[in-house]
Amino acid sequence: MSPIDKLTQLFERFPGIGPRQARRFVQYLLSAPPGVRSELARQINALGAATAQCKRCYRWFTKDGQASLCDICASQGRDQSLLFVIEKDADLEQVERSGFKGLYFVLGGVVPLGVDEPAQYVRLRELVKRAEADHSTIKEVILGLSATSEGDHTRQIVAEALRELSTQNGFKLSSLGRGLSTGSELEYADPDTIASALSSRQ
Amino acid sequence: MSPIDKLTQLFERFPGIGPRQARRFVQYLLSAPPGVRSELARQINALGAATAQCKRCYRWFTKDGQASLCDICASQGRDQSLLFVIEKDADLEQVERSGFKGLYFVLGGVVPLGVDEPAQYVRLRELVKRAEADHSTIKEVILGLSATSEGDHTRQIVAEALRELSTQNGFKLSSLGRGLSTGSELEYADPDTIASALSSRQ
Amino acid sequence: MSPIDKLTQLFERFPGIGPRQARRFVQYLLSAPPGVRSELARQINALGAATAQCKRCYRWFTKDGQASLCDICASQGRDQSLLFVIEKDADLEQVERSGFKGLYFVLGGVVPLGVDEPAQYVRLRELVKRAEADHSTIKEVILGLSATSEGDHTRQIVAEALRELSTQNGFKLSSLGRGLSTGSELEYADPDTIASALSSRQ
Amino acid sequence: MSPIDKLTQLFERFPGIGPRQARRFVQYLLSAPPGVRSELARQINALGAATAQCKRCYRWFTKDGQASLCDICASQGRDQSLLFVIEKDADLEQVERSGFKGLYFVLGGVVPLGVDEPAQYVRLRELVKRAEADHSTIKEVILGLSATSEGDHTRQIVAEALRELSTQNGFKLSSLGRGLSTGSELEYADPDTIASALSSRQ
Repeated sequence: MSPIDKLTQLFERFPGIGPRQARRFVQYLLSAPPGVRSELARQINALGAATAQCKRCYRWFTKDGQASLCDICASQGRDQSLLFVIEKDADLEQVERSGFKGLYFVLGGVVPLGVDEPAQYVRLRELVKRAEADHSTIKEVILGLSATSEGDHTRQIVAEALRELSTQNGFKLSSLGRGLSTGSELEYADPDTIASALSSRQ
Repeated sequence: MSPIDKLTQLFERFPGIGPRQARRFVQYLLSAPPGVRSELARQINALGAATAQCKRCYRWFTKDGQASLCDICASQGRDQSLLFVIEKDADLEQVERSGFKGLYFVLGGVVPLGVDEPAQYVRLRELVKRAEADHSTIKEVILGLSATSEGDHTRQIVAEALRELSTQNGFKLSSLGRGLSTGSELEYADPDTIASALSSRQ
Repeated sequence: MSPIDKLTQLFERFPGIGPRQARRFVQYLLSAPPGVRSELARQINALGAATAQCKRCYRWFTKDGQASLCDICASQGRDQSLLFVIEKDADLEQVERSGFKGLYFVLGGVVPLGVDEPAQYVRLRELVKRAEADHSTIKEVILGLSATSEGDHTRQIVAEALRELSTQNGFKLSSLGRGLSTGSELEYADPDTIASALSSRQ
Repeated sequence: MSPIDKLTQLFERFPGIGPRQARRFVQYLLSAPPGVRSELARQINALGAATAQCKRCYRWFTKDGQASLCDICASQGRDQSLLFVIEKDADLEQVERSGFKGLYFVLGGVVPLGVDEPAQYVRLRELVKRAEADHSTIKEVILGLSATSEGDHTRQIVAEALRELSTQNGFKLSSLGRGLSTGSELEYADPDTIASALSSRQ
């Protein structure tokens, strides 16, 4: 296979990229100044060396020397009593913008419906270990999963895995509130969302 | 102006219909069997005679004899202590599906931003009158406005209009809970929605 | 069935209208001033009386007295040698804007693939009759069908139906040129369109 | 700037990629097995060494030894009398699928409206040189630009640049035919397209 075809295949594995756009990426690289290509390759190679996965929350961060914790986990200013469990790194940025000041744990995805070994899909064991290790400071674990069927399924599995520890150590397990999101109109809201919005009315 | 053009103009006033689709409606009627046209005209004319606006909640319903109340307002089985204020008739169907068992009041729309006389846009006086008349049974008025800027604006105006009465008669004023609606993913949720979902976590 | 439901059903038969929008139309009519409803019903009823189908080209036009021909068919200024066969009334407006100065014939639709009696779907017999009646003036019949598989199918059927007459009376049968339409880019054009654009290059 | 941010910036320059998707690409690479990253970097670096720009048509091709011509330009089986001028490499694939059997020249883009030095944007001088060099075999240059305003503008500039040579050496300058493209319906076609389809009817 030609390098053009090999590279096209690699780009097709990028999230949201189909064959046609993968080919356009290769065309772009072919016609770009050679400096662009070598810089891109260099940064891709540098990614591994320059970044590390936080030992505590499992998100990726830019290494500064030998640090093994990301800036949030290393910070003294965050509320150590709140642990926000999110699916993936990208969720964290949005939660930060909402003003949340606690800590995080990146689950690494959702558990597909109907699988036997959830721990193969998400960091279930690592989360339990984290909750154990921090049991003296954690007062609440917030399950920030998507409001989808896979998200609900994952939430039940995570809640199950943490239940005993939660009882023993007296921390609370909570889930994000459901309701109308910004921009929603009642006419187009589904009955479940309306029922949630009704029960969380204030 | 020709009847084709006049009818096109009338269809252009229909919600969501532009000039091109309005013309297609007229073409459809022109090529439809004559029976379709006369039946349509007959039903449009019948609409006024066969329907009535409920004297209590202001929604439109199919008249059955001399009834001046819709089936929900006339029913003994509904919870008389809850009054759900909605923008328009179409919202009611969705709320019914969510399992709500109280009563309704149709506001008739939202108040545009920056107007002086809100009562020209929505049934503000009628709502106050209703709350006064039913003050002995109403325990909570739920403001079910859209989660949009106009909806928020309208909610504030309605809350203002009912505040004194609410204090005097001891009924509660509540708003629908904000949060993740069904299908939402954290990555694509706006910070306000996440903040609401956080504060209504349970 | 209530008049609200009956009217909703009638609006659902309008082109491009689903159940939800049909209900919004009824809500619009319910809350519109009564004058709007009666005017709409009046114009729908007037449509039949005020419009007529042209005896020559079969398009709908606004009657002016006892005229049985539309203004284009009645005009002396149009080129009587060119007959443009179109699918439906709405096509005519666009062709007029392109500067065409000949005459029209409205086929009334396309022939679905795989049906036995094409004349049940389009005005095949009427077109043959028209071509016979005007055989001394017509020099070319332009088949202006859509560039879709049903359009192609219909074009073949119409061409077949006119072939003998075309040979006898010496008029030409032509089809619209295929090629790049305004706004097309080569990269996104299908091979058939490129092949047509190549063979009609000039 | 961190390598995560630098890489995000590089991906933002990819065609059709915004900041959010660029970040998702980086997240994908961060969580992908290290082998994926190093393979991607390797192929990007290999692209330059493994591919070459054809000296004759300027498209990119996979090098096979010291070849300086792509397989189409090197082939004996192509019609040497037809030269198809295209905007970019990606156009060539679609034209090949249409069954074209001549030769190509990749212009490298379109000339933006209102610029002074068109030769800074497209390979105008190279095209003239090619047409001179092959003047004994070329019988027709087909200008295969997009049917957009920039495409039309570019077509005029290229035609102008080749006009004298075309007269001297007796080759024809042609443009792709305009008309209905596959799938077009008359009702939604613009008047220019209909006018073109009418004038290229057959």
